[in-house]
Amino acid sequence: MILGTRSLRSAAFLCLLALVAAAAHAADPLPSWTDGAAKRSIVTFVDRVTTDGSVDFVPAPERIAVFDNDGTLWAEQPLYFQFLFAVDRVKALAPQHPEWKQKEPFRSLLAGDLKGALSGGEEAIFELVMATHSGMTTADFEQIVKDWLATAKHPKTGRPFTEMVYQPMLELLAHLRANGFKTYIVSGGGIEFMRSWTEKVYGIPPEQVIGSSGKTRFELRDGKPVLMKLPELHHFDDKAGKPVAIQHHIGRRPIAAFGNSDGDLQMLQWTTAGDRARFALIVHHTDAEREWAYDRASSIGHLDEALDEAEAKGWTAVDMKRDWKIVFSR
Amino acid sequence: MILGTRSLRSAAFLCLLALVAAAAHAADPLPSWTDGAAKRSIVTFVDRVTTDGSVDFVPAPERIAVFDNDGTLWAEQPLYFQFLFAVDRVKALAPQHPEWKQKEPFRSLLAGDLKGALSGGEEAIFELVMATHSGMTTADFEQIVKDWLATAKHPKTGRPFTEMVYQPMLELLAHLRANGFKTYIVSGGGIEFMRSWTEKVYGIPPEQVIGSSGKTRFELRDGKPVLMKLPELHHFDDKAGKPVAIQHHIGRRPIAAFGNSDGDLQMLQWTTAGDRARFALIVHHTDAEREWAYDRASSIGHLDEALDEAEAKGWTAVDMKRDWKIVFSR
Repeated sequence: MILGTRSLRSAAFLCLLALVAAAAHAADPLPSWTDGAAKRSIVTFVDRVTTDGSVDFVPAPERIAVFDNDGTLWAEQPLYFQFLFAVDRVKALAPQHPEWKQKEPFRSLLAGDLKGALSGGEEAIFELVMATHSGMTTADFEQIVKDWLATAKHPKTGRPFTEMVYQPMLELLAHLRANGFKTYIVSGGGIEFMRSWTEKVYGIPPEQVIGSSGKTRFELRDGKPVLMKLPELHHFDDKAGKPVAIQHHIGRRPIAAFGNSDGDLQMLQWTTAGDRARFALIVHHTDAEREWAYDRASSIGHLDEALDEAEAKGWTAVDMKRDWKIVFSR
Repeated sequence: MILGTRSLRSAAFLCLLALVAAAAHAADPLPSWTDGAAKRSIVTFVDRVTTDGSVDFVPAPERIAVFDNDGTLWAEQPLYFQFLFAVDRVKALAPQHPEWKQKEPFRSLLAGDLKGALSGGEEAIFELVMATHSGMTTADFEQIVKDWLATAKHPKTGRPFTEMVYQPMLELLAHLRANGFKTYIVSGGGIEFMRSWTEKVYGIPPEQVIGSSGKTRFELRDGKPVLMKLPELHHFDDKAGKPVAIQHHIGRRPIAAFGNSDGDLQMLQWTTAGDRARFALIVHHTDAEREWAYDRASSIGHLDEALDEAEAKGWTAVDMKRDWKIVFSR
């Protein structure tokens, strides 16, 4: 039968691919990590849960790993990149909104006074995000993000934002996937914002991206269905919101979690509270030269309580300066 | 290296499995379907989107198929099974709720008057569901559902509810997965209710189950994190709620959708409105002898507008009596 022959042929081809991939992975899977406790803890954990017959063995479908994004997979200084996107969008949309000239936080932002715009605190940020992340279809928004990423540059390094991703973490994602893990993003960032580029940059497909979200509404426009993005918060995926979203989207507890700030603490607690082998890792930004150094005193990527808990509970704390041979992807 | 050898060995084993599976699929993948237009339309569609080089070829990661559950994958008469679960739970919990003796819809229900209990309409149903689906942790709820399914029997057939699943649809799920599809449930039923058994019964893992949901709250209890189920609706996954949830959970448009009622119409519209090859199927309950016969006049599984649209748009309509050799799994 035609179907049978075709299936056999593609199965044989997949076999070849799998064997080549397996052989390639005999090499060091984490070449950008220095040989130390952090790297060792990762390799040991993956080995424990994938060794058939080991007491710590975890069947492949349960090998769920969750990653924060900002400050864990890509940089987040001097401001969350999605906020820089919102700023650029306010400027682009200003001609259609003459009322913004009189209205904070838009007025300050358009006058080039970012600090003034942010002085309104969370409410101001919320307003800027909603004004730039709603009022269009999900498909249109995806295109707007893609267009922005194609030209926008990081204010300090001048590099495209999608190149400001951490090479050691890309290797870690690949190592986990090569060992049967399903890798998820669980981020305070916008779910639709991230999905437009995570598959290409991290190899993480849209259905494995969890984040903050606004409400959407299904509409028929000239008989064609669209999903409109509304200026209403649906879920804020930070702190206690992370385990809630993990349960809602994944429905089972991860066995490994990776974060960098107090916003990730509850996700790490939830992950490690399961029975059997669990893994938790915190990326500690200690490298002012190659990246940024910040923790307890920073409002961006504030890391205080989670750093203490990592020490108390024996979670892996990555010292970026010491543990990473290189920082950004090349 | 040990890791390399182990990976090679498991890759070789997976190869063997894949080859055996491919050979087995050379046989008819849908043996419980009669040879007719419905079966032909499925086989043809799968062939079109998986044939490399065809204009309709769809890369594997984009092969997303979404299935309604009640009335599409398992039966839904004489009442949605999850509602029968809620009724049993009200009875089990009644001793802890003396106030229910005076309070509708509980009073009627406990007096054995189901019709009276349901006379309160959607509000009454909502109250019964909330009273039985909240106030415990997600882990406890999962166990309650599993315990119920282990002993509860369908009121008409006397079979466990998890045996009231459609054999032809199980074959369809398997056929799609054998061809690289990711199969999802998108149901009005409760997301946590379904996740406790869909992996075992349908081979659909928790992270591919989308449904109605209540809110949950993260709490530390004696230092141990739990997720408490709250008596508040989070999402009602019916009608226009289905495309909204598909976008929220999956983040890309399915290429195939399967339903049986007007509650699935927007999901079918959303799926088929994408460009390139798309597939939509409606299960029409026409078999009063082996199952039930109902459509336009039924409140359970109401099928009216979607049946007309299926005809107008050339979607596949399965006539259960004519198209299925057998109905329930054996």
